[in-house]
Amino acid sequence: MADNPNCDLQSLSPLQLFERVTEQGEKVRALKAGKAPKDEIDAAVRMLLSLKLSYKTTTGQDYQAGLPPKDLVLINNGTTKEEDEDLVNPWNVQTSNAKGVDYDKLIVRFGSSKIDTDLINRIERAIGQKPHHFLRRGIFFSHRDMDQVLDAYENKKPFYLYTGRGPSSQAMHVGHLIPFMFTKWLQEVFDVPLVIQLTDDEKYLWKDMTVEKAYEYARENAKDIIACGFDVNKTFIFSDLDYLGTSAGFYKNIVKVQKHVTFNQVKGIFGFTDSDCIGKISFPAIQAAPSFSSSFPQIFNGKENIQCLIPCAIDQDPYFRMTRDVAPRIGQPKPALLHSVFFPALQGAQTKMSASDPNSSIFLTDTPKQIKTKINKHAFSGGRDTIEEHRKYGGNCDVDVSFMYLTFFLEDDDRLEQLKQAYTSGELLTGELKKVLIETMQPLVAAHQERRKQVTDEIVKQFMTPRKLAFEF
Amino acid sequence: MADNPNCDLQSLSPLQLFERVTEQGEKVRALKAGKAPKDEIDAAVRMLLSLKLSYKTTTGQDYQAGLPPKDLVLINNGTTKEEDEDLVNPWNVQTSNAKGVDYDKLIVRFGSSKIDTDLINRIERAIGQKPHHFLRRGIFFSHRDMDQVLDAYENKKPFYLYTGRGPSSQAMHVGHLIPFMFTKWLQEVFDVPLVIQLTDDEKYLWKDMTVEKAYEYARENAKDIIACGFDVNKTFIFSDLDYLGTSAGFYKNIVKVQKHVTFNQVKGIFGFTDSDCIGKISFPAIQAAPSFSSSFPQIFNGKENIQCLIPCAIDQDPYFRMTRDVAPRIGQPKPALLHSVFFPALQGAQTKMSASDPNSSIFLTDTPKQIKTKINKHAFSGGRDTIEEHRKYGGNCDVDVSFMYLTFFLEDDDRLEQLKQAYTSGELLTGELKKVLIETMQPLVAAHQERRKQVTDEIVKQFMTPRKLAFEF
Repeated sequence: MADNPNCDLQSLSPLQLFERVTEQGEKVRALKAGKAPKDEIDAAVRMLLSLKLSYKTTTGQDYQAGLPPKDLVLINNGTTKEEDEDLVNPWNVQTSNAKGVDYDKLIVRFGSSKIDTDLINRIERAIGQKPHHFLRRGIFFSHRDMDQVLDAYENKKPFYLYTGRGPSSQAMHVGHLIPFMFTKWLQEVFDVPLVIQLTDDEKYLWKDMTVEKAYEYARENAKDIIACGFDVNKTFIFSDLDYLGTSAGFYKNIVKVQKHVTFNQVKGIFGFTDSDCIGKISFPAIQAAPSFSSSFPQIFNGKENIQCLIPCAIDQDPYFRMTRDVAPRIGQPKPALLHSVFFPALQGAQTKMSASDPNSSIFLTDTPKQIKTKINKHAFSGGRDTIEEHRKYGGNCDVDVSFMYLTFFLEDDDRLEQLKQAYTSGELLTGELKKVLIETMQPLVAAHQERRKQVTDEIVKQFMTPRKLAFEF
Repeated sequence: MADNPNCDLQSLSPLQLFERVTEQGEKVRALKAGKAPKDEIDAAVRMLLSLKLSYKTTTGQDYQAGLPPKDLVLINNGTTKEEDEDLVNPWNVQTSNAKGVDYDKLIVRFGSSKIDTDLINRIERAIGQKPHHFLRRGIFFSHRDMDQVLDAYENKKPFYLYTGRGPSSQAMHVGHLIPFMFTKWLQEVFDVPLVIQLTDDEKYLWKDMTVEKAYEYARENAKDIIACGFDVNKTFIFSDLDYLGTSAGFYKNIVKVQKHVTFNQVKGIFGFTDSDCIGKISFPAIQAAPSFSSSFPQIFNGKENIQCLIPCAIDQDPYFRMTRDVAPRIGQPKPALLHSVFFPALQGAQTKMSASDPNSSIFLTDTPKQIKTKINKHAFSGGRDTIEEHRKYGGNCDVDVSFMYLTFFLEDDDRLEQLKQAYTSGELLTGELKKVLIETMQPLVAAHQERRKQVTDEIVKQFMTPRKLAFEF
């Protein structure tokens, strides 16, 4: 990659240009420090200025040492985060604000686009029905290139959906369902193929876990995903550990991505260090590769350039910013994205739910009684300290976790609005709001458990077998 | 890996211990620089001393900053090489000595063992026949754990052979045949399965080459390898790009190795930098994985612990030092190794042959006339400047490339000894020695070409199809 300083700078990505400027700056410093001949220093400085100009032309930003281009801003383990910024990366989400992460700021930092009323209306026109309440309520709030997906759809060009899950334990919580519920809706309204990646290799690399255990979790998690109601004729679920050894196309795309991403880049994007294992360092390519249809020759008949749309929580965006940076350089279309907010922990929206703390979440295996106890005991309340104060000043829906959960799971817009009014005015008490949530979650979880019981090993095998789906390509 | 400083130090490999000492040293320096409380510094210093002691106990060497343990000594791009040392790594071999690399020194640097008379005699007893002239003449000169392989063989325990090639171009030269000729002999005398890896992914990552081109070279090179006379019932040849997508076990071993090797380690062993792509950084795991029999479930019936023996040129040893370091930590036996010297370029033994310089090598596609011209024109001579001087003082076989080539390809020991005597005494002139070489190489290359013509695409497909071989496991 670009060893020759005279190669065509216009073919470089913003991040590559950034690196070239950085390298050239180091070269100039080294020449000066080494008291090199003046003409040599002058030539290096001229090259540096020319590179900075190319950088500005390409990115619209001035080069700043240590600050990569905005579309690939550093979101590593907090080291470059400013004091008041939220921490958001694939392994950690933290904010000091009880309302949760500031998503408007995140859109600016990540360089994505807001899902605004115009886009929601356009989706409604395209599909001829009311958009999902996750869209109407800003739960999916940010996107990349969704307009292009709609262009393709309106022109009868095919696209496909790709989402995934890192199977870190057998127990999934209700927050894990959000991307799958939304993906299921997208698949139904657009009638497109769907691939779901279970990154058991990632979990093996990151956790103290055997390969066998990671694969077992993947299969167990597949049951919960299937229980969301996906159509086996239109959906392919795969474990990396499994599929990598059965696909003619997947590894080829992985190695293509791996050739076009440097350690410097993954260090900047994911905060990896020299002490990280080489598996972690190269893993981002494995999450990137399903964005390219040639990773699934059995589904797309070997076709290379079918547009991909990825619904995911915003913390997964770093992987796909990297993927979008690489795509044109390996002759592939950039995947489009729809980003969701984080699902809050019962204890408050400062962090996302964690599968490792049973009280932070409502698990898909919880009994009605456990659900009731957890909500009553742990759901952070936006209500006042006393009933009198609550009646007088009203509750705060912006920080009340029970209300937040209802925005996710109570589909009835009118009812939700009524609850909001009543709680804000003080008419509805915290206990009453919690009761509504309990009555919403208990049947939802029970129904999921019922559906999950029907998912036999045989059904899992069907979903996870590489095969043609009910679409012609 | 080992985030907890109190974890059992005895479970760490020498290289891990080395890294722990280095990290702890940095910590102490940082504490001192940051003027930390005295008791905190003292505790860190105590930990440092304890780590250094563990390091000494484990490796038998004193810890020296920047100098990893001897079995994993740095052989990177020359930066840590001492002035008079030969440069030997998988991408570069250079020496200033016309006799070639100093192999005795290399054995000490690499921490391997010399193949001595005792070992050669033991091999002879085990197989009941005269060892290959590559062994008798010191062409395979170094080993790791060959005794263990012989123990296993004498106890009727199975082992298998693994070798490989990076298919960088369609044209192979006679030097490329050395490991394959020797491997073929090993396979015949020990009657064991053989796997041959074609690292087309490596070539794609390192060179300016498409995935398709790399795979095409792999298949073309397979024809030359098959033409060496391997038995299709006992040999599996695979391209990484191909086999990774068809094997249930290969990727699992790759990811296991990738979990247990850090960027720091591959930086030390291979000299990678932050600007290298993540594909290069993680590639060593792909060359490591075939050392474990579970990478070939179709051959070994899923058995995990079958001993592997790797015949290869010594420049490939860094990969397998790394593999041997990882093996016990993933519950696998360490592969044993047999190392060959480098095949010299026609121009002299200072460097190995290069497929990119047509005059540096005799290619397997050369005509008898080309062979004659190349040898006469380019083979570096150890003869004297004038016939008179040559007759008087004699030639120098230690630097004469024609003589070196004959040690590789002239099987007749008596004839070789005669030639040596005659050349050294001045009786035989350079032109006459070259004539012997020409007459040796012409029929050898012609016979290879004849056999290669018989290798159809169908035969290549048979060798490259994952399948059971003629062995029960």
